[in-house]
Amino acid sequence: MGEFQLIEKYFNRNVSVNDCSSIELGIGDDCALLNVAPDSTLAVSTDTFLEGTHFFKGTSPFAVGYKSLAVNVSDLAAMGAEPIGFTLALTLPDNNESYVAEFADGLFDIADRFKIPLIGGDTTKGPLSVTITVFGSVRMGQAVKRSSARIGDAVCVSGHLGGAAYGVALRYGKETSVCHDTEEKAFRLLDYPNPRMDLVPFFRRYHVHSALDISDGFMGDLGHILDCSGVSCKIELCDFPVSDVLMHLSRQKQLDYALNGGDDYELCFTLAEEDYNEWSDAAGRGLAPIIYRVGSINSNSSSENDRLKTGGIIFTEHGNRINPKTLRHSFSHF
Amino acid sequence: MGEFQLIEKYFNRNVSVNDCSSIELGIGDDCALLNVAPDSTLAVSTDTFLEGTHFFKGTSPFAVGYKSLAVNVSDLAAMGAEPIGFTLALTLPDNNESYVAEFADGLFDIADRFKIPLIGGDTTKGPLSVTITVFGSVRMGQAVKRSSARIGDAVCVSGHLGGAAYGVALRYGKETSVCHDTEEKAFRLLDYPNPRMDLVPFFRRYHVHSALDISDGFMGDLGHILDCSGVSCKIELCDFPVSDVLMHLSRQKQLDYALNGGDDYELCFTLAEEDYNEWSDAAGRGLAPIIYRVGSINSNSSSENDRLKTGGIIFTEHGNRINPKTLRHSFSHF
Repeated sequence: MGEFQLIEKYFNRNVSVNDCSSIELGIGDDCALLNVAPDSTLAVSTDTFLEGTHFFKGTSPFAVGYKSLAVNVSDLAAMGAEPIGFTLALTLPDNNESYVAEFADGLFDIADRFKIPLIGGDTTKGPLSVTITVFGSVRMGQAVKRSSARIGDAVCVSGHLGGAAYGVALRYGKETSVCHDTEEKAFRLLDYPNPRMDLVPFFRRYHVHSALDISDGFMGDLGHILDCSGVSCKIELCDFPVSDVLMHLSRQKQLDYALNGGDDYELCFTLAEEDYNEWSDAAGRGLAPIIYRVGSINSNSSSENDRLKTGGIIFTEHGNRINPKTLRHSFSHF
Repeated sequence: MGEFQLIEKYFNRNVSVNDCSSIELGIGDDCALLNVAPDSTLAVSTDTFLEGTHFFKGTSPFAVGYKSLAVNVSDLAAMGAEPIGFTLALTLPDNNESYVAEFADGLFDIADRFKIPLIGGDTTKGPLSVTITVFGSVRMGQAVKRSSARIGDAVCVSGHLGGAAYGVALRYGKETSVCHDTEEKAFRLLDYPNPRMDLVPFFRRYHVHSALDISDGFMGDLGHILDCSGVSCKIELCDFPVSDVLMHLSRQKQLDYALNGGDDYELCFTLAEEDYNEWSDAAGRGLAPIIYRVGSINSNSSSENDRLKTGGIIFTEHGNRINPKTLRHSFSHF
């Protein structure tokens, strides 16, 4: 089956679209054509997935399709943008039609759920690789950048962390399974991350200042917000939202997975104290997604002597300062 | 050198931009942010380049960088769109810094010339592969689609064809070099295609109806215009613009390379007879790029019994009808 037939058969599906944009022309010409609403800014993100690097050899084609689009959508959510469409550059070792069929099912599981039509692409023969470029739309001036955290902001995360990294450790045999259900859940967290697009309207409502998605690990990713915003923060660990698949592990290991493990794709964001309180109240009444406050932006990094030593983050547990060395890569995940 | 340092050192360059758009945010956040002018449509194209498939093992990194962006820009030109920016997903087998440096020089040779800033990307470790997504802007309603050819249109190409395919044949040893200069020129045509962005303003001025870039070969690519527009055409071969690197070959081989050879990235387009005459006059006075008329759109394909037999194209030479079998893949390039 040639490129055209492959695309026609598996990728030419109708997906309903969000009303923030219109697709004037999709697959089949030199370019796709998109009309972005006049008061909107286009948000663009690109990610590549390689077998052996980003997913394990033997990962189901459905999961590969699902995750490669899901993590791109997560980038849009972290920017406060609504999806418009995506392009797919798919490289496959051979014309494995059943692989393509399953891959497309996983891809369109996300595309359908978030209303993101496939608007263009390229299929080539070679070592398995997926590159997706996703397009989103955000009201002009309302994109949530990582450079806009302010002193006094509450630092929040959108969910429990560390579960996906535990899945990685299980796959590598660095952890031994103690319970089938826990293992299954860890693999599900790793293979099927949930892009937190549900937070986007609340980012607008509660004036979130800065955000990013936790792909490489909370500590490193929060570091990007601190670096880009020129601020430092305090993180309190006693109520840190640790994934329940880690509950049987030592406290140290739990924190290591939750603070340093990647692949969770929850969002980390900062907003004014009073806006956090309002969101939190609304969440308590079931009117907003539950979020977890983990700390505060407390000073400009330039005024902070500890910056270099701490990476801009001071950790406390029940108010007592913790030596960050005990939290950082106490063992190697990979 | 890690991903961040690599990007910082080689890909974070200032490129001046066209005034049809603005880059609100480039590399370094979850998404890049683009503002498209309110009366404009966004044009998007994605292409992947693999070593061994799209370029020969041993092709200079400069040429790989150059060509992978050039052919994407060519897609914009074929749509009548001006470039805004591009994303790069680069997979490299190892941290070969000198490869990256040369690759980036080739890439920015095109990026600087056409004012296309790199706005985002991803670098990963794996088998050499380059995926570029390019963004352009075209006045609303003025994109030149392949589906809009009309009966009576002149069929034109923007330059001499077949030279790049001869370069491929030389590289594969299917042709023997007869002259060093000719060989060098054929390789230059293959490795350094010139995106015909210079035609875009003239596409608007002379109301070009349909266009595409000749990447897979004139005959097949023109077939896409005919299929999408539902029309047939006549092509006169006596003045067909054949690349001068083919001059020493038999007439049959010349036509085979020119009609079936890919990689030239000249544009094939159709426009009304009177607009063609005006363009041609202007070109004669040095006021427009020279174009080559090769035929006419002469009927609806539905009314054409020969459609299936001829693929919608009737070839003549000095008015005498030619059997298309003598023109089609009389030998294999690959």
